[in-house]
Amino acid sequence: MTVTFVEARVSDVRFPTSRLLDGSDAMNPNPDYSAAYLELMTSDGEVGHGFVFTIGNGNDVQVAAIEAHLPLVIGRDVDEVLADMGGFSRGLVGDSQLRWLGPEKGVIHMAAGAVINAVWDLRARRAGVPLWKLLADLSPAEIVDLIDFRYIADALSKDEALRILEAGLDGRADRERLLLESGYPAYTTTPGWLGYSDEKLAALSSAAVDDGFDLIKLKVGADPAGDHRRLGIARDTVGPDVKIAIDANQVWGVADAIRSTNALAEFDPYWIEEPTSPDDVVGHATIRKGVAPIKVATGEHAHNSIVFKQLLQLDAIDILQLDATRVGGVNENIAIVLLAAKFGVPVCPHAGGVGLCELVRHLSMFDFLAVSATLEDRRIEYVDHLHEHFTDPVVIRTGRYVTPTAPGMSAQMHDASLAEFIFPTGAAWTTDRTAEGARHE
Amino acid sequence: MTVTFVEARVSDVRFPTSRLLDGSDAMNPNPDYSAAYLELMTSDGEVGHGFVFTIGNGNDVQVAAIEAHLPLVIGRDVDEVLADMGGFSRGLVGDSQLRWLGPEKGVIHMAAGAVINAVWDLRARRAGVPLWKLLADLSPAEIVDLIDFRYIADALSKDEALRILEAGLDGRADRERLLLESGYPAYTTTPGWLGYSDEKLAALSSAAVDDGFDLIKLKVGADPAGDHRRLGIARDTVGPDVKIAIDANQVWGVADAIRSTNALAEFDPYWIEEPTSPDDVVGHATIRKGVAPIKVATGEHAHNSIVFKQLLQLDAIDILQLDATRVGGVNENIAIVLLAAKFGVPVCPHAGGVGLCELVRHLSMFDFLAVSATLEDRRIEYVDHLHEHFTDPVVIRTGRYVTPTAPGMSAQMHDASLAEFIFPTGAAWTTDRTAEGARHE
Repeated sequence: MTVTFVEARVSDVRFPTSRLLDGSDAMNPNPDYSAAYLELMTSDGEVGHGFVFTIGNGNDVQVAAIEAHLPLVIGRDVDEVLADMGGFSRGLVGDSQLRWLGPEKGVIHMAAGAVINAVWDLRARRAGVPLWKLLADLSPAEIVDLIDFRYIADALSKDEALRILEAGLDGRADRERLLLESGYPAYTTTPGWLGYSDEKLAALSSAAVDDGFDLIKLKVGADPAGDHRRLGIARDTVGPDVKIAIDANQVWGVADAIRSTNALAEFDPYWIEEPTSPDDVVGHATIRKGVAPIKVATGEHAHNSIVFKQLLQLDAIDILQLDATRVGGVNENIAIVLLAAKFGVPVCPHAGGVGLCELVRHLSMFDFLAVSATLEDRRIEYVDHLHEHFTDPVVIRTGRYVTPTAPGMSAQMHDASLAEFIFPTGAAWTTDRTAEGARHE
Repeated sequence: MTVTFVEARVSDVRFPTSRLLDGSDAMNPNPDYSAAYLELMTSDGEVGHGFVFTIGNGNDVQVAAIEAHLPLVIGRDVDEVLADMGGFSRGLVGDSQLRWLGPEKGVIHMAAGAVINAVWDLRARRAGVPLWKLLADLSPAEIVDLIDFRYIADALSKDEALRILEAGLDGRADRERLLLESGYPAYTTTPGWLGYSDEKLAALSSAAVDDGFDLIKLKVGADPAGDHRRLGIARDTVGPDVKIAIDANQVWGVADAIRSTNALAEFDPYWIEEPTSPDDVVGHATIRKGVAPIKVATGEHAHNSIVFKQLLQLDAIDILQLDATRVGGVNENIAIVLLAAKFGVPVCPHAGGVGLCELVRHLSMFDFLAVSATLEDRRIEYVDHLHEHFTDPVVIRTGRYVTPTAPGMSAQMHDASLAEFIFPTGAAWTTDRTAEGARHE
């Protein structure tokens, strides 16, 4: 009997993180980490999960955008969709009326990505394997069929992608064994939120080193004196051998970015992240020349593979920070990983938020197994909050992501979490805020 | 007594244009031209109007995004807001939680633009002048205060903008007289929709020349043989002296764009519009080199001033096609007009759609009076549908936009149009589609 997609539920889930300034930075002083969360049900009782990470207001708009894509999937034959994920992805991203609202950017593109990711979650669950394993076991030909090369072929042709993937077959079994034994390198942003006190910064930096991390990240860009003081505290705390990345979250213009980054050079920052608008590929190229040897990193807000293509073509970045829910889902992220490999730039994904760590580890592990074939200069971001709401949460051991083995993309939240944090009717939003804040302390 | 913004109504208005293939092109085969339409009411009974143009599905998402911005304006002091439109605009675009959903792009940015435009409409109504006049009469210092220079200062500093505007004071009274006497040049896209028959194309091309237009535009990119045939028909019809622009609506990659455009060179196309993704500033630079002397035009989907900045920095376009509802409203479009002037690139706005002609003439007229001070190589797009729904519709006379004199930004729709075309409950959507289509023929 034909199995079809029969219904979907899209939920507005918000966590009141602004009460503790978790996640605070120069651009985002008081985020409430949120997810527009999709459960996509099949007629045989299976569920695929996907979501878009947002930071509060507007999460309802993201929910509406996901709902706008549902007519493109509800009623369709599940086996047919799963057998042609390239065509499915192109159909969603290319729907002409919805595409007008992007194109391929912002709310509408992230919504398509959530649907595409939910279907990947379902496919991996059906196959009984974690997504990283499902993807890595596809043939090079199957993988390139997932990708829309239209707007990236001038930088990466289908043939070039095939050759990269074919080269990646070498030694794959050994790499998979290594991955299962010792995981994937991580770095931590937990110490560095801008709203934390100097004491909390020092204590968490010290704890991060004790926990085995060899790179921590600090938010900068709110005020120069504060940046100087905080970076000094962190450097004194971790010593000269632990890397410290800094992250301005787009608050600077091009000239400011160069001046402000160089003003912190004495503390040997490893990379400057989001020095300016993610749309400014030309500006990033200028900044990179202006701050070398400090590296330039960006990508969490780079809205599609076309932006990443240009950052690479212009030699504008040293580190590519893809995000699991910013672009058009797994398919586009595979294209981005291949673009990075073509240009020899390491992928260090953005994570944190809600569930981003859970999702993105699958992409980095696929990258290691099937594409880049190396861990050198690679680390996945790690932030230690909100994992308890996921059924397959990340596990970190001595500064590394433990390789997940549960089937799927790890996108599922606990029902109890959904119930508590649904906005605005969940208990987290209806109980007294002061009492709630105190309880969370 | 303090006047405040007291309430707002946001409407999902859709016109069933797909029934006749008006607006059909290679990327958008069956658009239903739509508007997410905002009416913003003050406590003294005035109303400001703004909207975002979309092409059907997803218009409800755009409505939700406008609604998400209302808490940032409802309750505020109208006089204070109107007196600091720069600050108001930066506050809306920079709201950190909403900004995360862009940043400064797509659904969320267009929504901010609709609110900002509605407030400009109100300000011009209160002043009793059309928007072009209100803007042109601001001092250079007042105009630069409207602009957020953070991400564009490396290409256009505040001082440079001031100097351009000060130079624009020369001869302004003469230009205003000229504008009121003879209007602003237009070109027409009416003949060239891809869904039209060859006979309709020829008849409408001929009619366009008779109506006084010296440039018509044809959609291309669906199939090479069809493009060749249709462009041949148009050239035969209009003769060698009328310019023919062609528009691919982003269907090509970079190499395809160069090849496909050059394959039509024998018909002497004036510009190739949207040859590839609007995000690909590097690709546009490559295409421009590859198709010269055919000009390259883009902008209707360029999502903010940062994209335009880079198109100009990379010498990637010959014609800048700003759109009245794609970016963050009047303020950002003023920045874009100034960027174009700095780089000596003519602005030929995108129009058509729903109400875009009505809005954008104000920006081009401001450009002529206060910034570029010339009409050379400038034309505003014109398409002859849906104007009857606006209270201050465009008037075209011998191929030129007649200069509007009614107070405001011309963004208001007739109540009867709203009632008929509101989706999905208006009569246009509840009556039988076949009968409706027949009636419209």
